[in-house]
Amino acid sequence: MNVQAKPATVTTGPVIGTRKIYSSPEGRPDIAVPFKEIALHPSANEEPLRLYDTSGPYTDDAVSIDLEKGLDPVRATWIAKRGFATVAAREVKPEDNGFVTGDKLVAPCPAERTVLGAAPGQMVTQYEFARAGIITEEMIYVAHRENLGRAKALESAAATIADGESFGAELPEFVTPEFVRSEIARGRAIIPANINHPELEPVIIGRNFLVKINANIGNSAVTSSAAEEVEKLVWAIRWGGDTVMDLSTGRNIHNIRSWILRNAPVPIGTVPIYQALEKVGGNPDLLTWEVFKDTLIEQAEQGVDYFTIHAGVRLAHVPLTARRTTGIVSRGGSIMARWCLAHHKESFLYEHFGEICDIMRKYDVSFSLGDGLRPGSNADANDAAQFAELETLGELTKIAWAKGCQVMIEGPGHVPMHKVKVNMDKQLRECGEAPFYTLGPLTTDIAPGYDHITSAIGAAMIGWFGTAMLCYVTPKEHLGLPNRDDVKIGVITYRIAAHAADLAKGHPAARLRDDAISRARFEFRWEDQFNLGLDPDTARQFHDETMPKEAHKVAHFCSMCGPKFCSMKISHDIRADTVRMAGMEQMSAEFKAKGSQIYQPEAAAE
Amino acid sequence: MNVQAKPATVTTGPVIGTRKIYSSPEGRPDIAVPFKEIALHPSANEEPLRLYDTSGPYTDDAVSIDLEKGLDPVRATWIAKRGFATVAAREVKPEDNGFVTGDKLVAPCPAERTVLGAAPGQMVTQYEFARAGIITEEMIYVAHRENLGRAKALESAAATIADGESFGAELPEFVTPEFVRSEIARGRAIIPANINHPELEPVIIGRNFLVKINANIGNSAVTSSAAEEVEKLVWAIRWGGDTVMDLSTGRNIHNIRSWILRNAPVPIGTVPIYQALEKVGGNPDLLTWEVFKDTLIEQAEQGVDYFTIHAGVRLAHVPLTARRTTGIVSRGGSIMARWCLAHHKESFLYEHFGEICDIMRKYDVSFSLGDGLRPGSNADANDAAQFAELETLGELTKIAWAKGCQVMIEGPGHVPMHKVKVNMDKQLRECGEAPFYTLGPLTTDIAPGYDHITSAIGAAMIGWFGTAMLCYVTPKEHLGLPNRDDVKIGVITYRIAAHAADLAKGHPAARLRDDAISRARFEFRWEDQFNLGLDPDTARQFHDETMPKEAHKVAHFCSMCGPKFCSMKISHDIRADTVRMAGMEQMSAEFKAKGSQIYQPEAAAE
Repeated sequence: MNVQAKPATVTTGPVIGTRKIYSSPEGRPDIAVPFKEIALHPSANEEPLRLYDTSGPYTDDAVSIDLEKGLDPVRATWIAKRGFATVAAREVKPEDNGFVTGDKLVAPCPAERTVLGAAPGQMVTQYEFARAGIITEEMIYVAHRENLGRAKALESAAATIADGESFGAELPEFVTPEFVRSEIARGRAIIPANINHPELEPVIIGRNFLVKINANIGNSAVTSSAAEEVEKLVWAIRWGGDTVMDLSTGRNIHNIRSWILRNAPVPIGTVPIYQALEKVGGNPDLLTWEVFKDTLIEQAEQGVDYFTIHAGVRLAHVPLTARRTTGIVSRGGSIMARWCLAHHKESFLYEHFGEICDIMRKYDVSFSLGDGLRPGSNADANDAAQFAELETLGELTKIAWAKGCQVMIEGPGHVPMHKVKVNMDKQLRECGEAPFYTLGPLTTDIAPGYDHITSAIGAAMIGWFGTAMLCYVTPKEHLGLPNRDDVKIGVITYRIAAHAADLAKGHPAARLRDDAISRARFEFRWEDQFNLGLDPDTARQFHDETMPKEAHKVAHFCSMCGPKFCSMKISHDIRADTVRMAGMEQMSAEFKAKGSQIYQPEAAAE
Repeated sequence: MNVQAKPATVTTGPVIGTRKIYSSPEGRPDIAVPFKEIALHPSANEEPLRLYDTSGPYTDDAVSIDLEKGLDPVRATWIAKRGFATVAAREVKPEDNGFVTGDKLVAPCPAERTVLGAAPGQMVTQYEFARAGIITEEMIYVAHRENLGRAKALESAAATIADGESFGAELPEFVTPEFVRSEIARGRAIIPANINHPELEPVIIGRNFLVKINANIGNSAVTSSAAEEVEKLVWAIRWGGDTVMDLSTGRNIHNIRSWILRNAPVPIGTVPIYQALEKVGGNPDLLTWEVFKDTLIEQAEQGVDYFTIHAGVRLAHVPLTARRTTGIVSRGGSIMARWCLAHHKESFLYEHFGEICDIMRKYDVSFSLGDGLRPGSNADANDAAQFAELETLGELTKIAWAKGCQVMIEGPGHVPMHKVKVNMDKQLRECGEAPFYTLGPLTTDIAPGYDHITSAIGAAMIGWFGTAMLCYVTPKEHLGLPNRDDVKIGVITYRIAAHAADLAKGHPAARLRDDAISRARFEFRWEDQFNLGLDPDTARQFHDETMPKEAHKVAHFCSMCGPKFCSMKISHDIRADTVRMAGMEQMSAEFKAKGSQIYQPEAAAE
């Protein structure tokens, strides 16, 4: 057994300035929803700010992490009472781990478990429960989670601040479990939650909830081990990844996935065609429905929460890509296009779509209908191939719903700003408002090394327009594999995009954090400003570079302007003066009412 | 004399992969407009791509840089023939350099020069010439500069690619000197070009031209020297800064500025109130019109191209800020607000605005009417104080035009996405379409350390909506002084925002670069991809991290997917196959015309 198989250590402990807390919905002490709280300087005279927390038990000092045991199965009792049968688990086959043996073989995670599956006709998916009018624990959980500290906020003046342009999204003032249920029943939201992933802290993805972000991990080359992969997961969710996709394509893929799933508090997504292709030696022409189907079952039994399925890449669409500037840039899309052309046959994913639904329904694996023909350049944005596939995805969405499955839809890619909104509008129309899950989009092609930024612009906009989840892009996009720093930068950048979208949509609680940090700025509470930010470590480090002393952390100025020029300090003087000069404000109003061009200080002084 | 006074060395030589060239407008061999060209791999079979170049002679291997002599005065003959009188230059006073003496005094740049000024009634500003129907050399220069390689591009297929939503901007297919003149005459564009800055390579700022960006430099503390400041300038324009603002507030301010101006090929902007405040010991209450006026003349004679003047901060506006979350965050704005309140008098900038115009006109210093009451937080965005000032700026714009001056208008700040567009629309309406020059705006407050990104989102959007120049924000915003890396990241980030805006507006040539890099990607021309990007060094370094070998720079795959999974490689196979299978595309069209849901491979194979 490879020593790398045991991830000896991952990053634990809270992000500086934050404290993990749990809160239960009224009357449900059995449901403990995690949040993080940021305590503010006593001079602020403010309650701690409560924030959404994606980081799982790793940031809880009270929890002892043992990767071999896996995380606490918080959903186990909820799932147990639904009465699913234990399934005779599929045997692990040599090809599942790329035929590696001996020392090269990474041992699987030893956490004990049984595999569950729904009987035919037995309700299992969140969609089926929602349609039947049943509110699940997962729905109660996400409702409480989405509300943040909003109940408290509603009591304060700050509660009246939300405005925004929602483009048809219907953000409720307060999220109830019934609202969650109705959104899932309408297909407008999903809770990706495989019944074989009891360690999951449920997350809702939908236009009428907080915008979510996904981070990708994976051992593309043979460079990674299980240890590194679990740490990548922990690291990505520490900074705000709501879901994580494991895009591994190398060896040991099955066993590494077992480590990830048993230690993942967030939904895990995969692209099963990657592993299927490994099993046939990397030659797309050799892919078969049987190999693919077997891979679906293998991964579903492990507990993967959502699958990217490129069933929209149909034979007839392939020629539409022939004159593109950048052809097909989706790996899954190109694999399926290659297969269709080689055999001159319709895609087996499309032809077997009903069976795929049946398999995924059995475990409540959600669909992420892949955009295999997304544009890889501004030149190809919104072209016939892309939109033909989107129309097919709409068709498939309705089939999946009829089969009882949860569905979201993947979107582009590379799209200049003026072509972004039509993507959102068309997706909502074609796919019956199923959640949209977009990569970026990148608004220009000319900045390799900075594509987290080119894409954050598009991501913020499309999030505002209605995209439910944004797939992150790191600085290494187009160039290489992201390292630890790249993953963090990608996640923080996408948290910015998602939050900017929440603000612009008018999410009722989104601005609480902005206002708290703005007050901290105005009052020179430097530590509060760092802690309230998305990345307290970097903020503090940047401040230290020019003003390293502890005393500077309460200084009523900063290095940018220095003590003499501080505009905020002057603003405080102004505020004091203005209060002294009672009546000034009224006078200003009178002045404006009179429409006078030149202010008359003499008159005003009367 | 301080040894630091002589900047011994600055960064020279072309950015890797680029080559400086000069091109002259037809019939004007005396006007040499700089561009950079990127030669592509022979396999591309493409002409070198010609790009706009902000970097000045520093990236020209044929030019020997001597900071003590300053740059070649490329405008000298144009200016000379306009017949301006030599002015008896204002004597340098001890307060100009903060009363420093002896070893602490940085010597001024020894480059020889005379100071010019227009006589009363003598045409001097680009606005006056434009109104009189006269096309200046500066107008011819910027017309040629704005066209890039467009004449050539128009002949190729790539010329037909531009689309976009311009929101009322009127981008011409081809920029003529007459178009430039008419835009300047209408007040919709400016060429900041002090007649005492002959070293300038003219730049046009206006909604119907390429979106420009500004980078700030300055010795806020006593940490900087002349050497460092000139290098900051050179570094900022190397990566794409179109103009540079010198925001210095420390000692030696006058003499350091002389080094900057004599070595600046880009327009230099300043905020004269900063130096005026230094002269009165840093106490805003002690500011007088006389000190300010003297500072204007001092800086205008040195050759500063545009002044930020916060004349819109009026006494009556100050109380409107009292209940703000973050008060007044503009340094200039807070200084003036403090002065107004302390004296309970109308702003001397507002009251002496006509005289300010007369001084600035004499040298053709352009106005950048400052937004002293810009919001410092999302909470304060678009509030009464901000918009009251903007209305005043509109009033002042008309006065400045009547006096013959060139004008642009500064804008916010911190603005959530849904409130961005109204800023642009109101600015155009209030200020008669004078160019808008915005800082960001930052679309959320919660990411100290990443405000280049929070603001790039807003900057790209407002640039699309019509902002003519974007003031950069670095990662150090709110936290400290930007270092060399921060400046580069800020500039590249803002080049992204400006270019994304150009694409979305439908600039006829903007997409040439995107398409060139996309073709390079699709054809695995890695070196071309690096060189065509905004930052070839970083792109190459990122690629090297996982694939360092030279052979990898022509590899038909990358480290992200590895050789087996490369979607682009598969796309090439697909393209070849598609061509082989003649008629496939037509069949697809027929299939679509029939509206069939399921593709029939048998029928198609007939």
